[in-house]
Amino acid sequence: FGSGWRPCGLSGIGVGEQFGGCRQSQQEKFFSCSFPQIDHFGFVQDLTFQQRYLVADQHWRKDNGSILFYTGNEGDITWFCNNTGFMWDTAEELNAMLVFAEHRYYGESLPFGNKSYTDSKHLNYLTSEQALADFAILIQHLKETIPGAQNAPVIAIGGSYGGMLAAWFRMKYPHVVVGALAASAPIWQFEDLVPCGTFYSIVTNDFKKSGQCCSESILNSWEAINRVSSTVGMDDGLKWLSSAFHLCSPLKTKQDVAVLKAWLSETWVNLAMVNYPYKADFLQPLPAWPIQVKCWRKKSGGKRLRGERCIILIYNVFQAANVYYNYSGATSCLNTSQSATGNLGLMGWYYQACTEMVMPMCTDGVNDMFEPSKWNFHEFSEECFKLWKVRPRPSWIPSVYGGKNISSHSNIIFSNGGLDPWSGGGVTQNITDSLIAIVIPEGAHHLDLRASNPDDPKSVLQARALEVQYMKQWIEKSRHKY
Amino acid sequence: FGSGWRPCGLSGIGVGEQFGGCRQSQQEKFFSCSFPQIDHFGFVQDLTFQQRYLVADQHWRKDNGSILFYTGNEGDITWFCNNTGFMWDTAEELNAMLVFAEHRYYGESLPFGNKSYTDSKHLNYLTSEQALADFAILIQHLKETIPGAQNAPVIAIGGSYGGMLAAWFRMKYPHVVVGALAASAPIWQFEDLVPCGTFYSIVTNDFKKSGQCCSESILNSWEAINRVSSTVGMDDGLKWLSSAFHLCSPLKTKQDVAVLKAWLSETWVNLAMVNYPYKADFLQPLPAWPIQVKCWRKKSGGKRLRGERCIILIYNVFQAANVYYNYSGATSCLNTSQSATGNLGLMGWYYQACTEMVMPMCTDGVNDMFEPSKWNFHEFSEECFKLWKVRPRPSWIPSVYGGKNISSHSNIIFSNGGLDPWSGGGVTQNITDSLIAIVIPEGAHHLDLRASNPDDPKSVLQARALEVQYMKQWIEKSRHKY
Repeated sequence: FGSGWRPCGLSGIGVGEQFGGCRQSQQEKFFSCSFPQIDHFGFVQDLTFQQRYLVADQHWRKDNGSILFYTGNEGDITWFCNNTGFMWDTAEELNAMLVFAEHRYYGESLPFGNKSYTDSKHLNYLTSEQALADFAILIQHLKETIPGAQNAPVIAIGGSYGGMLAAWFRMKYPHVVVGALAASAPIWQFEDLVPCGTFYSIVTNDFKKSGQCCSESILNSWEAINRVSSTVGMDDGLKWLSSAFHLCSPLKTKQDVAVLKAWLSETWVNLAMVNYPYKADFLQPLPAWPIQVKCWRKKSGGKRLRGERCIILIYNVFQAANVYYNYSGATSCLNTSQSATGNLGLMGWYYQACTEMVMPMCTDGVNDMFEPSKWNFHEFSEECFKLWKVRPRPSWIPSVYGGKNISSHSNIIFSNGGLDPWSGGGVTQNITDSLIAIVIPEGAHHLDLRASNPDDPKSVLQARALEVQYMKQWIEKSRHKY
Repeated sequence: FGSGWRPCGLSGIGVGEQFGGCRQSQQEKFFSCSFPQIDHFGFVQDLTFQQRYLVADQHWRKDNGSILFYTGNEGDITWFCNNTGFMWDTAEELNAMLVFAEHRYYGESLPFGNKSYTDSKHLNYLTSEQALADFAILIQHLKETIPGAQNAPVIAIGGSYGGMLAAWFRMKYPHVVVGALAASAPIWQFEDLVPCGTFYSIVTNDFKKSGQCCSESILNSWEAINRVSSTVGMDDGLKWLSSAFHLCSPLKTKQDVAVLKAWLSETWVNLAMVNYPYKADFLQPLPAWPIQVKCWRKKSGGKRLRGERCIILIYNVFQAANVYYNYSGATSCLNTSQSATGNLGLMGWYYQACTEMVMPMCTDGVNDMFEPSKWNFHEFSEECFKLWKVRPRPSWIPSVYGGKNISSHSNIIFSNGGLDPWSGGGVTQNITDSLIAIVIPEGAHHLDLRASNPDDPKSVLQARALEVQYMKQWIEKSRHKY
């Protein structure tokens, strides 16, 4: 890794400083900031803001190069940069400049500085449409300012929400990017495009694969928690539960028990998402195949939940959660208000979920291991209004991005992991010969975007090879135009 | 014309009443209103507004029908409906339902009622992106509510700015419309995509075709007006000019003279736009080939402009303008603040020109017959800010709609008239085998969209036949998908 070519955040290099504050550092060729309009779609708000982006150009070739453009999602861009080793691994083969663009309202790209989250008025410009326009303006800026970049084909790459953005970017700005790799992008997790139960049933299947007892224990745990928290005598039960789960803040009310259960559900979802074949630190530091690690620790016998069996079950569930939250062994107590890395902008994402990104989810306790819960749009809308003074518009995303009717677009790869709950809302079958689906059976959430690893299953190696092959085709084809 | 099938505005039917006020009239099958969000791209402004649209379904067939959707532009939709006879003439052949959608902020589709134009805050949602989203939502609404419409292929049709909208609609919402007919749509009249002088040089050519003296007289008239208004003695000169031009409000200042000249320029431009082969009433009631009618009346001898020659020249120019403004003979004086039908929403268009629709224009008096005038963006921006408190963003339209790099789109016909000054910013050569250019040498501004006429030149008949042929192809192809 010479100067100008280092994965961001490599320990000891102080990348935070280099990328931080949007300072330009010609020497290191890592720059800098773009200054898009805060509001691309209206003219009363005429201010611009500092959008941060990262550039690495060691393998960039002026005469024959391409640009791989990461469409940043809901978090600090350096974190995504660190978790998208695939781009770094591919740069040389494609003579590519790497650009990582931070999504507005996340990381350091705050349109109104520390006032950005104060109210819905300041949050009003946090939408996918504005973010896509930022990306288009940024690429235009790069092409105008970097010698040799003018005619360089650009490929959008993103994962998860970033993958949705990559796909939508190609759909809405095909004049800016010649193609897109949309990894684990649940572009159909909206309205009634897919059944609301699929997501949690995939999570459940992941746990079932590690032994039937695994998902059954979790299914039974909800009743056990309910039983302990209410029948033993409320106060005693809550005290016991708090201690059994090593909670930092003891449970005091029934509401707290609901929070505990939601937090556990989120934990199982996160485990399914990061069920990678090797030790990794994405949402949390975790061992290889973390679900397996958890599940062999669990046992739950008998048919009816009573007394001791409840207690064993809950203890086992705690052990499983503890592997997720305390794999390093440094955590003294568990905090139900945190379930993943602080690099994700949860506030921002919650606002987006309350406006555009309305993804209906439901569980039934039959096809999944969760407490039955119907999708209740009205309740959700009330909650959003209480929190942000905005109402969600559930049909907008399908209206603007086409829902299932996207066959007239081209040059998009949709990759999905078979273990990833988000694959349920993703494109897993080819739509046309240039809207390609790649399924990685052993893959969790955008495993293909991660750096190459000796423990990678064959399926992800094949997926990456195919992705590179398509990208080369797009680049080649675009060259004929100039 | 049976019930449910009448061109809107047909005299004696009181169509204004039927369409007006967004009342639903099931009996006549002309309805009604859609209620899109005022702001599709933000969530603080959560109100909806009444968008008016017209439907005619006499030839619509539930089992095998299509929908021709007029993407309304800057004016009252009934007026466009009346001037788009092509759609009415084509409906039967395509089993088509006709829908004419009014553009927000025009006609009766005012998001904030009579407050819509009070300030830039209320005007903030007047953009092409919002209008396209309105159209998408409206079509979705039609498909959900009209039996048999769900799978009916929709084709967007529009002229001028409406043609731009039709093309952009297909580009951005290909899941909503299977194709677009963009008539006289100057999608490249932005930034430096075409030379700023082309527009006025085409106007000039139109006048030249009616005899060299025609454009020469106009070219000389500016100097004559300047001379008369200043050298004779300012007061006397202005008085004489006011009388010679039969002005309703006499000229008082040099500024008034500038307004007079701008109004005359606009008159020549409008004449070029509506230089139709038959008597018509689009911008004004006019005879067939109105430029010819004017030009044979004009004579201007000699080489230098002095005294009597000035006077003859100005008298001739008045005669020409008078044909445009007073063909009916009912006008007692000419008003320099009006140059076209009141059906156009000039205020709204001026706001749009001051924000997104920045179309650079220039003249040099050599390649055209106008006073030399450079494109001065700075001056324009200052004027916009003074008027609306907004700044134009000249590069936005090419950024968002792709400029000249649109080859990855499909199924758009760009038709242009050889006499139409707007053809200079239009697409006049095929881009791909599904981005088709049709040029109508004898056509002025979207002649092809007008109703069939015995005096139509062959070229427009051929153009319309080709347009229908392509539309049939799009419809046929889309059927195979269902």
